[in-house]
Amino acid sequence: MKANSNKGTMISSALNYSKTHFDRFVDELIDFLRIPSISTVPSSAKDVDKAAHWLVHHLQSLGLHDAKAFPTEGHPIVVAHYEVDPSRPTVLVYGHYDVQPVDPLDLWDSPPFSPVIKDGILYARGACDDKGQLFMHLKAFEAWMQTSGRAPVNLKFILEGEEESGSASLPGFIETHRNALAADVVVISDSSLFASGIPSITYGLRGMTYVEMTLTGPDRDLHSGTYGGAIHNPINALGDLIGKMHDEHHRITIDGFYDRVRPLSEDELDAIDALPFNAKNWVQEVGVDLPVTEYGFSVLVSSTSRPTLDCNGIWGGYTGDGAKTVLPSQASAKISMRLVPDQDPKEIAELTESWLRRHLPASMHMDFKVVHGAHPVLIDTESRAMAAAAKALEDVYGCPPYFTRIGGSIPVVADFKELLGLDSVLMGFGLDSDAIHSPNEHFGLDRFAEGIEAILRFHAHYGLP
Amino acid sequence: MKANSNKGTMISSALNYSKTHFDRFVDELIDFLRIPSISTVPSSAKDVDKAAHWLVHHLQSLGLHDAKAFPTEGHPIVVAHYEVDPSRPTVLVYGHYDVQPVDPLDLWDSPPFSPVIKDGILYARGACDDKGQLFMHLKAFEAWMQTSGRAPVNLKFILEGEEESGSASLPGFIETHRNALAADVVVISDSSLFASGIPSITYGLRGMTYVEMTLTGPDRDLHSGTYGGAIHNPINALGDLIGKMHDEHHRITIDGFYDRVRPLSEDELDAIDALPFNAKNWVQEVGVDLPVTEYGFSVLVSSTSRPTLDCNGIWGGYTGDGAKTVLPSQASAKISMRLVPDQDPKEIAELTESWLRRHLPASMHMDFKVVHGAHPVLIDTESRAMAAAAKALEDVYGCPPYFTRIGGSIPVVADFKELLGLDSVLMGFGLDSDAIHSPNEHFGLDRFAEGIEAILRFHAHYGLP
Repeated sequence: MKANSNKGTMISSALNYSKTHFDRFVDELIDFLRIPSISTVPSSAKDVDKAAHWLVHHLQSLGLHDAKAFPTEGHPIVVAHYEVDPSRPTVLVYGHYDVQPVDPLDLWDSPPFSPVIKDGILYARGACDDKGQLFMHLKAFEAWMQTSGRAPVNLKFILEGEEESGSASLPGFIETHRNALAADVVVISDSSLFASGIPSITYGLRGMTYVEMTLTGPDRDLHSGTYGGAIHNPINALGDLIGKMHDEHHRITIDGFYDRVRPLSEDELDAIDALPFNAKNWVQEVGVDLPVTEYGFSVLVSSTSRPTLDCNGIWGGYTGDGAKTVLPSQASAKISMRLVPDQDPKEIAELTESWLRRHLPASMHMDFKVVHGAHPVLIDTESRAMAAAAKALEDVYGCPPYFTRIGGSIPVVADFKELLGLDSVLMGFGLDSDAIHSPNEHFGLDRFAEGIEAILRFHAHYGLP
Repeated sequence: MKANSNKGTMISSALNYSKTHFDRFVDELIDFLRIPSISTVPSSAKDVDKAAHWLVHHLQSLGLHDAKAFPTEGHPIVVAHYEVDPSRPTVLVYGHYDVQPVDPLDLWDSPPFSPVIKDGILYARGACDDKGQLFMHLKAFEAWMQTSGRAPVNLKFILEGEEESGSASLPGFIETHRNALAADVVVISDSSLFASGIPSITYGLRGMTYVEMTLTGPDRDLHSGTYGGAIHNPINALGDLIGKMHDEHHRITIDGFYDRVRPLSEDELDAIDALPFNAKNWVQEVGVDLPVTEYGFSVLVSSTSRPTLDCNGIWGGYTGDGAKTVLPSQASAKISMRLVPDQDPKEIAELTESWLRRHLPASMHMDFKVVHGAHPVLIDTESRAMAAAAKALEDVYGCPPYFTRIGGSIPVVADFKELLGLDSVLMGFGLDSDAIHSPNEHFGLDRFAEGIEAILRFHAHYGLP
């Protein structure tokens, strides 16, 4: 009884503290969001660095005096440690302080790096993905330290700046620092609630193979009048290849693409069917006339548990105002494939390249490069950490969380499993409507508060069972 | 004999004059080429205007005191008249002083509007198309006036600034000024020799339908992880449509597209076969591995006398450095179709749009607009003006010209026929290798001189038969 009442008091004090200081928490987050730390754009490198050092200073101000930004070949990795008791479990908190590019800039209602709050919602690039969500972990830790003087669990933080550009430096860093990063579980808040007020824990993530290709026909741009009809046009050829990568059932035609796809179990299909999902609302929210899925699969299954092939960008020829009668030399596309267990990103890249080369017309040369890859992940839902997280979410939301698979990729989850043997608890507080890779990204301050509370309660349930 | 010897003396004097003053002619042309009169780019409007007024001043300096730039809704049309004797034939000279856009700028060896001469070749945007070629007509006129004090024919000039952007103002202008523009024949130098030293007169031109389309799927950019698999991707959909616009024989699949195509006669096919064409050299010159034509047609026939469908530009999604996992809201393409007699540009635009709408997936919205159109043309090769032009070219090159069809479009040729009832003599001195719509456009000064001579001789043969 003593332990439990102590635990209850600790939680209340920490929650009270976080309520009292909430406005300041938000101000600090806004300060963090002002740094345009876009990792995919080389010219933003200084700002990514600035964000890393902002974090180091903030962690030190919370009492994590060893907080440090480790330089890498890409952007720095910020690490900090806190030990309350070696017998207590250790939580490794992962987050990323880099953000997505902001174009098209003219579609933002307010500048992406000048955060504004409207109707309790914070608008800024990174508000949700992932500056806002990683910051909840820092504030939960602060609340413990400022109330109980200690946290219920040991904590380690690893915060990277290359998530949006493929986390190239992270696996090597984890491997080199495997002892320093040793823990019992990884906790990541970089995903979404199932819906507003409906908690979920993600146990499945899609992987990714992201490639870029350029077709070259003639060695220079030609006049489409003088040469048109006798020269294969690389845009036409690229379009044809892209079209042929799906069949009429929206299945991907790359040979062997589906060979390693593990079929969903009946239980999993039932669980997905049981989710409170309203396809009509979804269509409206997404802004389409109708969903288009692989034949035979529902919207939820298709967008979370089946592999995809999407062109993320395409360019070639004249794209300015008016008409230019050019027969272009080149056409290019970026293509990403979302992968599911047990597809392998490297193998899929190879299958894709060899399919493309086999279908490439003799008139075209192709440059093909793999931009990055990530393994798909399935996590054991029966662990002690999962139970603590489920209980924490039920405390906050009044109902147990759904266990869900999501369509996105968090490549580090596979890395942590492979390199440190650690499962991750994916406890996210975003919403699919947060526009995290679009203009007007935002994060509800209610969810920022709920996240801090859920993290506090998770620490308590996991460290003081 | 008197008339003939007079004619001979007149020609020699004019030729001598143009030789003596050739360096100055080139300097004047360079001055003209420095004006970046790109008609398709709205921000260049001032420079297009400047080029028009440069021409007016130049024409006036040659004694054409009524030279004037008429404002239009687009760019000005420059007109001037010269009458030597109402009983002589009247030649209406058409040219255009606007030029193509210059991107990709980094592929130019010297800036496009800073003309340079290397090894007798003049490099600049517009050097050949069409500033250099229209300027030959001005210099031939100057040579007559400075030697004989009069030209052998009546001359009218109509020089427009919208050829590269669709000549929107020209037809209305011709219609309004039909009396002032009355003539016996139009002469245009905006095409090419068959090959270096091998003259040709173009009697066939392709027409054009140029369209632009945008597909919209979701109403905003989406995260390809969260939504991929359940949302139709507009780039994938656009690629598929583009791919389906040709079949495996490189025939265009738009229903009715070929219905009005007039088959080439046996004589025409024989004449094309007789042309001194070396496919190996052509492939090398164009910079491709192999030609790709509509099944059953040769390179020359396909590139001059069969219709085409080329994507001139495509864009959508993320096209910057690195990876962005966006499922874009939109994808766009510019598509031009070269037409042959008796295809109609308006009808082809309608067939194209209705084909696209019929094949458009229910998940996509399409914006479709016609950017411009031009009728294909075939010209009578037996006229008196044609005979004079053929004789002039034989004088200069020592062999009679080939009569050829070319793949490009000179929409005004159809306009002159329709609105003024005039045939055109297309006597061009470019070469297909002049890169007229590409970086490093150029014009050999030898051909600039040959053109002036051929125009002089044409005037003499036509006016003093």
